[in-house]
Amino acid sequence: MPLQPVLIAGQWRAAQARGTFRAENPATGEMLPHEFPISTWADCDDALNAAAEAATILRATPPEQIANFLTRFAERIEARKNEIVEAAHAETALPKAPRLGEVELPRTTGQLRQAAAAALEGSWALPTIDAKLNIRSMLAPLGPVLVFGPNNFPFAYNGIAGGDFASAIAAGNPVIAKAHPCHPQTTQLLAEEAFAALGESGLPPATVQLIYNIAPADGLKLAADPRLGAVGFTGSRAAGMKLKAAADAVGKPVYLEMSSLNPVVILPGALAERGAKIVEEFTGSCLMANGQFCTSPGLTILFANNEAEQFIAGVKAKLESAMPGTLLSSGVARNLAASVKILQAAGAELVTGGALLAGNKFANTLLRVSGEKFLAAPETLQTEAFGNASLVVVARNAGEAAAVLNHLEGNLTGCIYSDTGGADEALYAQLAPLLRIRVGRLLNDKMPTGVAVTAAMNHGGPFPATGHPGFTAVGLPASLRRFAMLQCFDNVRPARLPAALQNKNPNGKMGRLIDGQWSQADVAG
Amino acid sequence: MPLQPVLIAGQWRAAQARGTFRAENPATGEMLPHEFPISTWADCDDALNAAAEAATILRATPPEQIANFLTRFAERIEARKNEIVEAAHAETALPKAPRLGEVELPRTTGQLRQAAAAALEGSWALPTIDAKLNIRSMLAPLGPVLVFGPNNFPFAYNGIAGGDFASAIAAGNPVIAKAHPCHPQTTQLLAEEAFAALGESGLPPATVQLIYNIAPADGLKLAADPRLGAVGFTGSRAAGMKLKAAADAVGKPVYLEMSSLNPVVILPGALAERGAKIVEEFTGSCLMANGQFCTSPGLTILFANNEAEQFIAGVKAKLESAMPGTLLSSGVARNLAASVKILQAAGAELVTGGALLAGNKFANTLLRVSGEKFLAAPETLQTEAFGNASLVVVARNAGEAAAVLNHLEGNLTGCIYSDTGGADEALYAQLAPLLRIRVGRLLNDKMPTGVAVTAAMNHGGPFPATGHPGFTAVGLPASLRRFAMLQCFDNVRPARLPAALQNKNPNGKMGRLIDGQWSQADVAG
Repeated sequence: MPLQPVLIAGQWRAAQARGTFRAENPATGEMLPHEFPISTWADCDDALNAAAEAATILRATPPEQIANFLTRFAERIEARKNEIVEAAHAETALPKAPRLGEVELPRTTGQLRQAAAAALEGSWALPTIDAKLNIRSMLAPLGPVLVFGPNNFPFAYNGIAGGDFASAIAAGNPVIAKAHPCHPQTTQLLAEEAFAALGESGLPPATVQLIYNIAPADGLKLAADPRLGAVGFTGSRAAGMKLKAAADAVGKPVYLEMSSLNPVVILPGALAERGAKIVEEFTGSCLMANGQFCTSPGLTILFANNEAEQFIAGVKAKLESAMPGTLLSSGVARNLAASVKILQAAGAELVTGGALLAGNKFANTLLRVSGEKFLAAPETLQTEAFGNASLVVVARNAGEAAAVLNHLEGNLTGCIYSDTGGADEALYAQLAPLLRIRVGRLLNDKMPTGVAVTAAMNHGGPFPATGHPGFTAVGLPASLRRFAMLQCFDNVRPARLPAALQNKNPNGKMGRLIDGQWSQADVAG
Repeated sequence: MPLQPVLIAGQWRAAQARGTFRAENPATGEMLPHEFPISTWADCDDALNAAAEAATILRATPPEQIANFLTRFAERIEARKNEIVEAAHAETALPKAPRLGEVELPRTTGQLRQAAAAALEGSWALPTIDAKLNIRSMLAPLGPVLVFGPNNFPFAYNGIAGGDFASAIAAGNPVIAKAHPCHPQTTQLLAEEAFAALGESGLPPATVQLIYNIAPADGLKLAADPRLGAVGFTGSRAAGMKLKAAADAVGKPVYLEMSSLNPVVILPGALAERGAKIVEEFTGSCLMANGQFCTSPGLTILFANNEAEQFIAGVKAKLESAMPGTLLSSGVARNLAASVKILQAAGAELVTGGALLAGNKFANTLLRVSGEKFLAAPETLQTEAFGNASLVVVARNAGEAAAVLNHLEGNLTGCIYSDTGGADEALYAQLAPLLRIRVGRLLNDKMPTGVAVTAAMNHGGPFPATGHPGFTAVGLPASLRRFAMLQCFDNVRPARLPAALQNKNPNGKMGRLIDGQWSQADVAG
């Protein structure tokens, strides 16, 4: 089978390759047939040049055209759904239904459509007008965005079609996607539809470019290149921190989603009131996609008592009766086994599971540790075990639970379950403030694995969950603001202003801050 | 005279000092009488502990109380105006009137009052509510902010009372200020008034802390400390980059304003139409505060012709007839002389000036270089000569001017002067997009040295002017958003939500994004 082409500078063309690779079918362990190139710097360089040109054109492109592209792309993904779902299933072992076809793909196309709507409406840019002084400002495109997608969401976080892609494009930037090497064919199919949609909407053909794989050093060189505007990355902390260092050194915005344990605090009243129900919710959340969600609950704090022991026993039983699923790759399986070993070595005891199984599976795993032992090795016991394993910390009392919370690193989410009668209120009041400042999203009485694509979502959080606690990767229009620079126009002549800053509200509905008031009106000329 | 106390943990107390220093009166070259401590890490450590405690209290403090503090502080500065202006004059040689007393001090108190209004009104936090899903988010305090003020604005950018201070406090964070060692007494007086205002408004006494001077290594250690939420810095690129590296390595938000040449492009039609007027404006802007504004025009692009030569001759005459003023310190004078030498060595010719004079003065200086020579050494010829020196680049044609613009680093501002009859429109259309993406604020027909404190201002820009192009240091409420984390509340029970996210609009006027619409209404319960 011929080597698959890269999408660079508006063409599907042969890569300037330094090697090749194939993806593995994690369910069978077999290598998939398509062979993909590992690009050299020459491909990266060409992509950067083409992206810089496309960026110049996109800055002057009306939002209607960008919205049209995003919508057409969504429609095209839906039209080719079966083929795309088949490819993703072969490359990730995630179920075709409901997960890939009924949940993730509609979420992805919905996100593209929300991005189209945000681009059209325009308020994301926070247009701000001081009419008297004729000083006007708004967020504006930043330049080409390099997007690294993760392994665990082949559609919704893909470098092509995922959240970073959608928000970077909607903000007016071209995207250079580095495919995740676990699902190159899925990414290729998505890029084919994106490329066709570019043609239909008249955007520059280099608005979307795709490279499958590069040497790590070239990734760092890309991240630091002056032609690039920003970097979006979802993946491991080790890789993310290297990219961050490269981008930071040259003052380039870099948005990272790295790792998260998503702590869950279950207060005693809640367990007493509805322990069995919480066992169900917790186990379901832990096993969702075999624990391979960014928001999978990896660390749970309980208060030592009989109900806590019943909870642990209940979860153990549920985990043992559920079939472990195939993990995303042999690498994920190996890392999971290694992480569980690290947790054990640091003092956590296995409640159940812990064994690597045939076929890239891992036994559904629960570990436990006392609050005291946790506090003796809080860093190591926060080792992320990505996959179907979770750690319970049993605290002796509120003071110990508070100490555990105070040792937590930044996380995407944090949950507190409390009883509905008010018995847990004092504990909630004591612990919630400690958890609140360590997480991007605080939940009550709900597991963290659902990430609704809504304007109010925060899929972000303090370091090391992400690289900056002020931004979200999910939730429009806020996610667009990552890929933008603030541009002020001081005494600029009216005809030279961008449409969003002219006196006339360009679409009659854009929200703008005019002389201190949010308004959809025109500026009185 | 006894060693001056630091303000740590709610007390004016003796520093744990590793040494002492005194400021110089730049006009006389004499050391000023007050002796200030250089703090050890022990002082920093105490300040961090106290700030962390204050941060916890401030997160739960109503905005009314924070606004009250900011307003009382402004009033107290005004009540002690004469003494504060005297101190700043002695420490900086800036004129008492109009500059310090009539311009900068009112600007500073005005900024504190705008910050109070922004805190009260609350829209800065972009409260966003999805009522159906009960997911709600807003920006919230980030934790203690370490503020390093610069030498050139003893009030408006002071670590106590300046823009970073006002926005960090208004966003709900305590401040640890590191005074600029050129004006410790000014900073001390401001801190005395801040401290008194804290008491009057009932804020935690460690909301404002002051250290005068520390070892550089302790500054980096502070910036990376986990008790700290963010860093605000205005100063040199060398110092800023070190702080940035320390903060970036631990994922801590750091906002830097470092260096800027503030390029001015004067198109031929404008010179032909009103050359003499532009000479006036340009010279006035260059000499404002002896060129020691962050936005001083340091690099001007002209098109080679007779009018350009007349412009240069006109500026030369003006500069030679103006008395050079005293620079902020002997260090500024030395650096200026060294920078001018670097520019000369890289091919720039002196038109006038270039000499270090007695009394920390420098001859008003203009240099020129051809576009061709500039393009041979574009990095060196962008050496910032902070003070009363400016470089003119004479381009042969539009292509050469475009090439010069394409080699510019990020800047705070960029100006284009064009004729009013339309003769320059084609050139404007060609060059403005190149300048636009390299500057935070684009001006037409206006010099950059005025920085209005208005919501639409951007005092920011691409690296290396700042560390992130999405944020502004001046202009409320936007500047508050630097010192905040995004907090989402998912299914959180109503009574536990922050006031800004409850169904009832807490003040009846806060702008919130409710189910996709900006609104000042309550959420329909």
